[in-house]
Amino acid sequence: MTKVFSERLAAAVRAKKTPVMVGLDPRWELLPEVFTEGKDPSDRASVAEAFELFCKAVVDIVAPMVPIVKPQAAFFEQYGPVGMLTLGKVIRYARNKGLLVLLDGKRNDIGSTAQAYAAGLLGEHSPWGADALTVNPYLGGDSLEPFITAAKQREAGIFVLVKTSNPGGGLFQDLVADGKPLYRHVADYIASLSAGLGGYGEVGAVVGATWPEQLAELRVAMPNSWLLIPGYGSQGGAAKDVAAAFDADGLGAVINNSRGILFAHRRKEYEKYGSAHWEKAVEAAAGAMIAALAGETRAGRLK
Amino acid sequence: MTKVFSERLAAAVRAKKTPVMVGLDPRWELLPEVFTEGKDPSDRASVAEAFELFCKAVVDIVAPMVPIVKPQAAFFEQYGPVGMLTLGKVIRYARNKGLLVLLDGKRNDIGSTAQAYAAGLLGEHSPWGADALTVNPYLGGDSLEPFITAAKQREAGIFVLVKTSNPGGGLFQDLVADGKPLYRHVADYIASLSAGLGGYGEVGAVVGATWPEQLAELRVAMPNSWLLIPGYGSQGGAAKDVAAAFDADGLGAVINNSRGILFAHRRKEYEKYGSAHWEKAVEAAAGAMIAALAGETRAGRLK
Repeated sequence: MTKVFSERLAAAVRAKKTPVMVGLDPRWELLPEVFTEGKDPSDRASVAEAFELFCKAVVDIVAPMVPIVKPQAAFFEQYGPVGMLTLGKVIRYARNKGLLVLLDGKRNDIGSTAQAYAAGLLGEHSPWGADALTVNPYLGGDSLEPFITAAKQREAGIFVLVKTSNPGGGLFQDLVADGKPLYRHVADYIASLSAGLGGYGEVGAVVGATWPEQLAELRVAMPNSWLLIPGYGSQGGAAKDVAAAFDADGLGAVINNSRGILFAHRRKEYEKYGSAHWEKAVEAAAGAMIAALAGETRAGRLK
Repeated sequence: MTKVFSERLAAAVRAKKTPVMVGLDPRWELLPEVFTEGKDPSDRASVAEAFELFCKAVVDIVAPMVPIVKPQAAFFEQYGPVGMLTLGKVIRYARNKGLLVLLDGKRNDIGSTAQAYAAGLLGEHSPWGADALTVNPYLGGDSLEPFITAAKQREAGIFVLVKTSNPGGGLFQDLVADGKPLYRHVADYIASLSAGLGGYGEVGAVVGATWPEQLAELRVAMPNSWLLIPGYGSQGGAAKDVAAAFDADGLGAVINNSRGILFAHRRKEYEKYGSAHWEKAVEAAAGAMIAALAGETRAGRLK
């Protein structure tokens, strides 16, 4: 690697002319039949193998279209060590296809243990070796430090949860202390880590597409952070909802869609393809999202 | 399983007459030499094998002494899928030796993904199959629900982070909103989940031994929650600091010690045993902690 993560991400977004990120959230019950038929869902190795084949096939489709994919650790971890082995294979496959890979693990712990997570999931000798990792801020600044150190050493990135896309995310994140909500305290802390950088740093932030107003506020509050925006599509966010996430060049944010692309063959708009031609549904859904963002946001200015 | 987790935990604490929990945090560089000599630390399978042998040996020593152990997922995950395989072996070994096992994973995500973590780490078909799991509350109430559902179905438990033991834990947790700190908002939410239960429920809480004042407040605030108290020993907490954690019968809290017991042969007090007799150091350190808690807290009333 010759460039820091924020620059590699900018270059990748420019090269593909889109900020679309495809979430790799394999779910047995939603897979196209070709991956499940004749297989036993109670056999973890069979499920993991189906996940591997499915995710690799998705990567083959989207690698020419988008800059980055986001495997969700939970769906692999659910099937035990064999699932985690598959996660590693999918990450390596996607990187070999020229994609950046953000591992969505939302890990954290107290400092000395956070070091182990940082080394394991992000460090130089990581068995998974993703380009970036999502991290939970509840444990405070000293819990984030080992991740930032590991990210700097490996020219990787982290994305700290700020305002999550789920309906109940506000229960604690919206509590107002000292005149501003908790999510804003987290955002201001993140901003302080990259203050004066004059560009994007290795500490990004997660802000849900389901909160367009706060997204605009948080874009301004964290001028040096790449934003990861989940919640587009299945969760209700649309292109106009994420318009405020981008800078003047159409950079600064990646917009994730998982189910809406992976399992597009189950969506009304793409049911004509059916399970048999699920790849065409994936391609069409990714293409539609790319077009929507290009048409309705500054992502259209990417060059 | 014939009893809910809170009852099994109470029975185990009574049977061993102590609330001491031993944290299984294996670290290559601190292991007694017998586990590392001739092994290559850059070979993950070798490290994982050393961790397995070491943790099983620790379990053999402490199984007759304490009710519960707490493997820390990060230290196993750091070595990849083979490390996670070892984690499962250690959990099964400890359960077979009659110990309860709390998996310290501090996981969470938005609802549909939290379901995958809950199924994977706590559910009926979990590849790891611990009796309880630690969970992070930042994502709100709807992110906790899948864990609670899984815990109820399997008669397992969860421990939600409230006030963590690390020095920087207060950065966000101590922010005051609506007249009370964030950690108290989390605590009150936890209390609402078990309101009117008339006993301990499946939703416990994590409160650091390093905050004795808040521990007293939080014991009262969450009358139906078992407390997991980290931060004893190496992190600075002493028996008097955790005295407020117990109910009148000496129940309601388990006090964790990881490094102070696991690597006791490196402590001044036990260096006489040396690396060669590390087992005696573990036994002595666990015994000393049991005695300190029995002498200085209501854990002495256990019967």
